[in-house]
Amino acid sequence: MAVYTKVRSEEIDAFLTRFDAGSLVSAKGIAEGVENSNYLIETTQDRFILTLYEKRVDPGDLPFFIAMLDHLAEKGCPVPPMIADRDGIKIQQLNGRYACLIKFLPGISLTVPTAAQAEATGRALGNMHDALQDFNAERPNSMNHDTWRTLAVDCGPLELDNIAPGLHDLVEAELGFLDTHWPDDLPKSVIHADLFPDNVLMLDDHVTGLIDFYFSCTDVRAYDVAITHAAWCFSEDGVQFNPAISNALIGGYSEAFNLSDTERAALPVLARAAALRFLLTRAYDWINTPADAMVTRKDPTAFLNRLKFYQANPDIFKA
Amino acid sequence: MAVYTKVRSEEIDAFLTRFDAGSLVSAKGIAEGVENSNYLIETTQDRFILTLYEKRVDPGDLPFFIAMLDHLAEKGCPVPPMIADRDGIKIQQLNGRYACLIKFLPGISLTVPTAAQAEATGRALGNMHDALQDFNAERPNSMNHDTWRTLAVDCGPLELDNIAPGLHDLVEAELGFLDTHWPDDLPKSVIHADLFPDNVLMLDDHVTGLIDFYFSCTDVRAYDVAITHAAWCFSEDGVQFNPAISNALIGGYSEAFNLSDTERAALPVLARAAALRFLLTRAYDWINTPADAMVTRKDPTAFLNRLKFYQANPDIFKA
Repeated sequence: MAVYTKVRSEEIDAFLTRFDAGSLVSAKGIAEGVENSNYLIETTQDRFILTLYEKRVDPGDLPFFIAMLDHLAEKGCPVPPMIADRDGIKIQQLNGRYACLIKFLPGISLTVPTAAQAEATGRALGNMHDALQDFNAERPNSMNHDTWRTLAVDCGPLELDNIAPGLHDLVEAELGFLDTHWPDDLPKSVIHADLFPDNVLMLDDHVTGLIDFYFSCTDVRAYDVAITHAAWCFSEDGVQFNPAISNALIGGYSEAFNLSDTERAALPVLARAAALRFLLTRAYDWINTPADAMVTRKDPTAFLNRLKFYQANPDIFKA
Repeated sequence: MAVYTKVRSEEIDAFLTRFDAGSLVSAKGIAEGVENSNYLIETTQDRFILTLYEKRVDPGDLPFFIAMLDHLAEKGCPVPPMIADRDGIKIQQLNGRYACLIKFLPGISLTVPTAAQAEATGRALGNMHDALQDFNAERPNSMNHDTWRTLAVDCGPLELDNIAPGLHDLVEAELGFLDTHWPDDLPKSVIHADLFPDNVLMLDDHVTGLIDFYFSCTDVRAYDVAITHAAWCFSEDGVQFNPAISNALIGGYSEAFNLSDTERAALPVLARAAALRFLLTRAYDWINTPADAMVTRKDPTAFLNRLKFYQANPDIFKA
């Protein structure tokens, strides 16, 4: 949530000469997305996002993301494709970083969505899954359920219990539960895997953009529904579950793409898995980020609360 | 250079209902300016900067800044005035901060300006001084030369010498020099007092915006020329003086506004003062900001180099 790599206006203007994109009129470093450096730039022709990839994105994954966004954009999904330069090149280098010029999408990210907005997002997710049915590239999920035990060990038992008393035992039990219950036989597909409200741009009840595809990967498709559910259907602290949002999200998804009975039956387990995944990554960041760092640490207990809710309420996904 | 106070899109949209400014289409937290929180927002009508004032701006000074910007805008200077809401109010409150909705200006901030750009900036500074001749509000300079001895004491002698060997003695000697040479009898006026290249927006050789007026104050008018000179006429590290930029800047200023012989004769002293001012504030921030903080510390020696140059080259300002 900061600009890590500084790029001078003159450097951006020189960078733009590689493209048919006009000359620079305005450039502002913006604070958003995962840990990349982003500039919102305006040229004499259009507006763009200029992204410089920092440590969290492996440059080797960029061709996959580019192919995915091109595929989705061609099918009419509201995603921001990378712009090719005059030689057809999309992966550039700038100031020692890999960099892409990306289509700017209007729309605002909501924090407290309405049911109509959740329904539109569910529909957009379903449309995306539909569009990805004939997308054949693959990318392993670097955050898949096999990695969570290592993540828990890296957190450390004492450190987990410092976040919430008994958390280490709870995590161990949940890892054991998922070892036996993870539905590995469900249909797999490329998924977004991080469709939080801040990765959806909206105007009124209309989705204008799905963004931040840098966790996209191949995994159980219904797990994407479960992640989106965990991200959208609770108060930020995870204490309040909102059944109207939940029904709207799943309803919108089902309108756009068929959620099979087997997938729906697996949602209680997948939702627990989604809650555990964000609980563990947030716990890891919490433990390894100094309290006084300027990066805002996200409270892991917000997803502990969701996990406990999903454990206690497997019936919320019943049609 | 970060977003300190987070404002949700919904909160910005609600905030906008106070104004005749359209409804929200896009909002991005931007990393710029002094230590305020800034959002670049687009509505159905126009673009704006939303600024939330953090610790460095005294809310009691906002009426002065607003009056100054209104005065300059009325006289055709390219400045970003604050927008009044339907009740004529410009100083708003939002999320516990004072906040203003501000006109967005296109243009990019240069890091390595050309002589033509320096000339345009000198002219814009002269036009601004001309426009301020009948502006009667006053604001004491909280960073004026009387405060620098205190600032040096607050830095501490050892800490100054840690930045550069002998710096404490050099600062003491320069403070003594300015005690006897500061030209207090020169014409005073409201000045910008911080017109670095990143506070000037340009398109090609044309100034489209003078921004960041939060150090504006009443002081010796030619001191503003000296500050701008110290900010523009050197390589960033202060090692290389650029005479072409210097001549263009002073030349552009003189075209737009009369620089009297007495003022010109005082420029060598005022430029030393300007270099000392930024040397001391940067030294203070350097000493009081942890090296691993996410805020970029600006190297104080860049202005020590300028100070030494001005000490050794008083003749550069001769017509």
